Amino acid sequence: MKTIQFDEARKRDIIPLGRIAIDFNPVDFNRPLEESTTFKKYLGGSPANIAVGMARLGKRVGFIGKVSNDQFGRFVTGYFKREGIDISRIAIAQKGESLGLTFTEILSPAESSILMYRNGVADLALTTEEVDENYIKDSKAIIISGTALAASPSREAALLAVEYAKKHGTVVIFDVDYRSYTWQSPAEMAIYYAAVARLSDIILGSREEFDLMESLTAPLGSSDRETADRWMAYDNKIVVIKHGKAGSTAYTNDGGVYKIKPFPVQSLKSFGGGDAYASAFLYGLMEGWDIVDCLEFGSGAASMLVSAHSCSDAMPKAEEIREFIRKKKEEFGEMVARG
Amino acid sequence: MKTIQFDEARKRDIIPLGRIAIDFNPVDFNRPLEESTTFKKYLGGSPANIAVGMARLGKRVGFIGKVSNDQFGRFVTGYFKREGIDISRIAIAQKGESLGLTFTEILSPAESSILMYRNGVADLALTTEEVDENYIKDSKAIIISGTALAASPSREAALLAVEYAKKHGTVVIFDVDYRSYTWQSPAEMAIYYAAVARLSDIILGSREEFDLMESLTAPLGSSDRETADRWMAYDNKIVVIKHGKAGSTAYTNDGGVYKIKPFPVQSLKSFGGGDAYASAFLYGLMEGWDIVDCLEFGSGAASMLVSAHSCSDAMPKAEEIREFIRKKKEEFGEMVARG
Amino acid sequence: MKTIQFDEARKRDIIPLGRIAIDFNPVDFNRPLEESTTFKKYLGGSPANIAVGMARLGKRVGFIGKVSNDQFGRFVTGYFKREGIDISRIAIAQKGESLGLTFTEILSPAESSILMYRNGVADLALTTEEVDENYIKDSKAIIISGTALAASPSREAALLAVEYAKKHGTVVIFDVDYRSYTWQSPAEMAIYYAAVARLSDIILGSREEFDLMESLTAPLGSSDRETADRWMAYDNKIVVIKHGKAGSTAYTNDGGVYKIKPFPVQSLKSFGGGDAYASAFLYGLMEGWDIVDCLEFGSGAASMLVSAHSCSDAMPKAEEIREFIRKKKEEFGEMVARG
Amino acid sequence: MKTIQFDEARKRDIIPLGRIAIDFNPVDFNRPLEESTTFKKYLGGSPANIAVGMARLGKRVGFIGKVSNDQFGRFVTGYFKREGIDISRIAIAQKGESLGLTFTEILSPAESSILMYRNGVADLALTTEEVDENYIKDSKAIIISGTALAASPSREAALLAVEYAKKHGTVVIFDVDYRSYTWQSPAEMAIYYAAVARLSDIILGSREEFDLMESLTAPLGSSDRETADRWMAYDNKIVVIKHGKAGSTAYTNDGGVYKIKPFPVQSLKSFGGGDAYASAFLYGLMEGWDIVDCLEFGSGAASMLVSAHSCSDAMPKAEEIREFIRKKKEEFGEMVARG
Repeated sequence: MKTIQFDEARKRDIIPLGRIAIDFNPVDFNRPLEESTTFKKYLGGSPANIAVGMARLGKRVGFIGKVSNDQFGRFVTGYFKREGIDISRIAIAQKGESLGLTFTEILSPAESSILMYRNGVADLALTTEEVDENYIKDSKAIIISGTALAASPSREAALLAVEYAKKHGTVVIFDVDYRSYTWQSPAEMAIYYAAVARLSDIILGSREEFDLMESLTAPLGSSDRETADRWMAYDNKIVVIKHGKAGSTAYTNDGGVYKIKPFPVQSLKSFGGGDAYASAFLYGLMEGWDIVDCLEFGSGAASMLVSAHSCSDAMPKAEEIREFIRKKKEEFGEMVARG
Repeated sequence: MKTIQFDEARKRDIIPLGRIAIDFNPVDFNRPLEESTTFKKYLGGSPANIAVGMARLGKRVGFIGKVSNDQFGRFVTGYFKREGIDISRIAIAQKGESLGLTFTEILSPAESSILMYRNGVADLALTTEEVDENYIKDSKAIIISGTALAASPSREAALLAVEYAKKHGTVVIFDVDYRSYTWQSPAEMAIYYAAVARLSDIILGSREEFDLMESLTAPLGSSDRETADRWMAYDNKIVVIKHGKAGSTAYTNDGGVYKIKPFPVQSLKSFGGGDAYASAFLYGLMEGWDIVDCLEFGSGAASMLVSAHSCSDAMPKAEEIREFIRKKKEEFGEMVARG
Repeated sequence: MKTIQFDEARKRDIIPLGRIAIDFNPVDFNRPLEESTTFKKYLGGSPANIAVGMARLGKRVGFIGKVSNDQFGRFVTGYFKREGIDISRIAIAQKGESLGLTFTEILSPAESSILMYRNGVADLALTTEEVDENYIKDSKAIIISGTALAASPSREAALLAVEYAKKHGTVVIFDVDYRSYTWQSPAEMAIYYAAVARLSDIILGSREEFDLMESLTAPLGSSDRETADRWMAYDNKIVVIKHGKAGSTAYTNDGGVYKIKPFPVQSLKSFGGGDAYASAFLYGLMEGWDIVDCLEFGSGAASMLVSAHSCSDAMPKAEEIREFIRKKKEEFGEMVARG
Repeated sequence: MKTIQFDEARKRDIIPLGRIAIDFNPVDFNRPLEESTTFKKYLGGSPANIAVGMARLGKRVGFIGKVSNDQFGRFVTGYFKREGIDISRIAIAQKGESLGLTFTEILSPAESSILMYRNGVADLALTTEEVDENYIKDSKAIIISGTALAASPSREAALLAVEYAKKHGTVVIFDVDYRSYTWQSPAEMAIYYAAVARLSDIILGSREEFDLMESLTAPLGSSDRETADRWMAYDNKIVVIKHGKAGSTAYTNDGGVYKIKPFPVQSLKSFGGGDAYASAFLYGLMEGWDIVDCLEFGSGAASMLVSAHSCSDAMPKAEEIREFIRKKKEEFGEMVARG
């Protein structure tokens, strides 16, 4: 039996919930942001990138979120529409909220930081009234982006979506997706991360993100094994813990432990891989693949993304990921990522 | 074995968490509030009343809360101190917050309503930083008043207290204590009530309060039995559902069902009984009594309170409750409340 | 020619603008507020008291303000109605705002302080849309209470009322009425007090209030003469500077200087006189009396009020003030207050 | 005697007060903003542009404002510093405020619109404590940008700066600079515009801006002559009313009326001219030129700017404006702009 079951009868595969934003990535990079003069505009925001990623992989994707009532809001919903993503549950902000912006500072292929515009953003204005119970009931899975928990009323909207998912057997995937903005205190973060993690089926997060989530219960830190056990005790089926360039590990509630490493690539920037990873990993799961194959597919997609200028435009199709992995294996050996 | 175990080694019996307020009850009552001209001032607020109630019953009581930095704040902490309640974890508001006020309108012994002052109140300004892990660790039980969940940052402070209690095996008692103020939407209420109810050991609430708590999961309403089963499935040991003058029922996770009714009294007002009920019921539990005896003791205390002008000053001592019950049984028969 | 002219053709005499509140004065006074147990409820708030005062004196009084949508809001508008004050321009708050409350601490006849409830108050929620140009056009005078300037949107509503009054030749009376609540900084206070004082015709304030108003221009303090000249240079006709028990002085723009002292009385409390003073002084002005007679009438009314338990219920009628002054002169001599 | 006198003994020429922002202008323009993919980043914000403009013209320029504590804040202060503008009174926001952003939509040379990021901006967080009396005392003139009045606490900071300027004889220039953002109501706008206009010495605004400013007093609109007279009655010396491509008119309090038209140019965009106009016009005034020469200089600078991609980088030096005007006159005749 598979670690996780999706209800194949449902008419939609997956619904990310959370922010849609715009990334402005410098054209003249490898320098401080102050000195960059020209920027390219891309759709961004972790759950939005995953929506694009999974749509490119052929999944039937919806979205629960809120965008600004201006040219940028129209840009992102237009983009979604062209990708075949259902935009019927994306609300339009009515009180002057803005779309979140991320200006990227690419100092070098290894060092980067971001300057975020998160004051008065539309995504955090999502309300409980804008979360449609039937939309969640009709989908195999939802992805809760942890950033949606960072402030009210989006926080309650996300928690409500989880309640509906539990009620209707929709698989709950929790992508921790930590951003320091908006949160009032580490305790607040730990409380709400734990509230979702207690009810989810799959958790994806970095070691640092799990440490934040467990800061009340295990203030001195836990091993990956302890972390996985803690959240599987609350009925999670899969816990994926990421360690950046050192690779990641998936724990399953049947005792499985699966490891993967990145593929060797010439990276342009140090971010953007995570959303491609999540998209391709979840795609594999939904296809019923073995966990380790899901991981390898995720790792391949991630490696492709860090070599690209955007986090959304560059999302690969399934055949492109397969081709990428095939070539890397040809060059570096079959076990290049699994070693 | 007892339904619920308290760690007898701990140095404090119980810590209510939530609001301390002031009640202004009209001296010239049985008329609309507009026409009442003279008011008596009493310490009030459900968890504060319970603190007084349990202190009068001889328990070692603490409190987690926040009061105004003014004469009213000093009045309530002074009152607590004289009752022997530990005030070391009651924070003093520093940003001009006020103590909550309740002006009571007593139209008749059966009809009453309240006018609440809840804008900018100190109790809802309690922060996670003001919740002391060791204080909770050193107590047998905490009582979470549902009103503390009505707004941030008090909401997070209450959720954090629950996390600490779970971590250290402190019994979590959830007193739903619904007030319509401050809440943004029924969904929000249901989300946070459920969040605490999933982690608590004992829940006390009226039928209406459970309906609010279950409005997402069971929008058409549940029977008491269904409600009790739902929350005992999340590891609650005792669920008490109150039906006002029709009495109340306690369900225990060993299959027990216990019913109680009010004692016949000449009531002055239709409120104030609940806090006396909770105090005396929990006192009995902590003494290791049978559930039905706890209920009768609670019912006796409640009946005493509705005949009094205040909700705090009139809290009875154990011998007074015993004497009250003895007399009522003498007059109306042994089964007067248990019928 | 009179110092100040009112347009006799107008259908209303005067419109105070600002707060209506409730005073709770202890019945068991001469002790700290913490220890007072019983309180009497009175209509309060400086501009509301003046409205009552002038209505009792027979003037046709309107009001621009906002009250809570609850029993207290209904109490104060009902009170106004019974006094014959037009309540057609008193808005009803729709967002849960409360009526302001003042709990009085009467430590002794000479010492008192107050505990104010000013968080989320209805009066400061008055908007520009709720200020009716024609209402101001149809009145001889408006009184701007300085407290209405303490926060937006009431601040803008008050400034708009002044603009309308200037446009239509309605006399602008500025009652500084300083309360430390709500203001963000001394500079803010000085800015907005000065903004109104530059456009007003009559200013009433204590020496301390004028010092606050002039803190930017004359940080080291001014004499009464300098203060009067400063604001008469901006076209004020009368500037009244009050020195508490030491009496007060009125300066007029034709060079007049008029002094008055309180009448000897056994006072119960040290507050409440100012609103009676303003009412009776303005009454005299509107009757066309000499300034010094206006002052004496004001001083008489003030002396009557400090001996009473309330600030509104006790507002005297014209014949009562006359009788009071007559008796005091009989007892202490004709020049008792003018000395 | 000159219409306006500047105190030549002061150590600084001029201090704009208000916002510093960043403009993102599309490289691929003449299309809707949604479709533009690449943007160039420029320092922007009307008072910031004027600061750059006047520094390029050789004036000693200071600034009162507040910027974000991030890369963008450092970009703009670094830019100012390189232009020789004193940045000692530019505060750094400490509560997560962002620098305002303006994304320009250039649909055609004649049509353009903007998408502004004004939620939680640093400039509107300027406080009264950050306005230095001596800095204003030591400068010949300050420019108040009307946008600084759009919200508290920046509103009070701007009003305080005006109070200090009046106290010390610093010339007050009011650049109406209307932006629809942040204002709560048209009445609010009219109130605060009028508050500054009653105290200023020079007002610069478009016909539409004066209509907004006068909407309470003259709701049906005024002629330019009436507008000029209205504000000169409050002691303004120069009132400049702009009519876009139809040119502008300066009224002086000695009865002078001076008209100017734009120079014929191939424009790239329809905005950015106003700040160059203000810079060059005020430069001329400070040099003691005749009003009409100031206007022509302003018009020349404005015409140069609308042909450029930025509003700040392209600010011309005095010799460049002179050369531009010389050439245009050579081509189109001496009276090309004065006609």
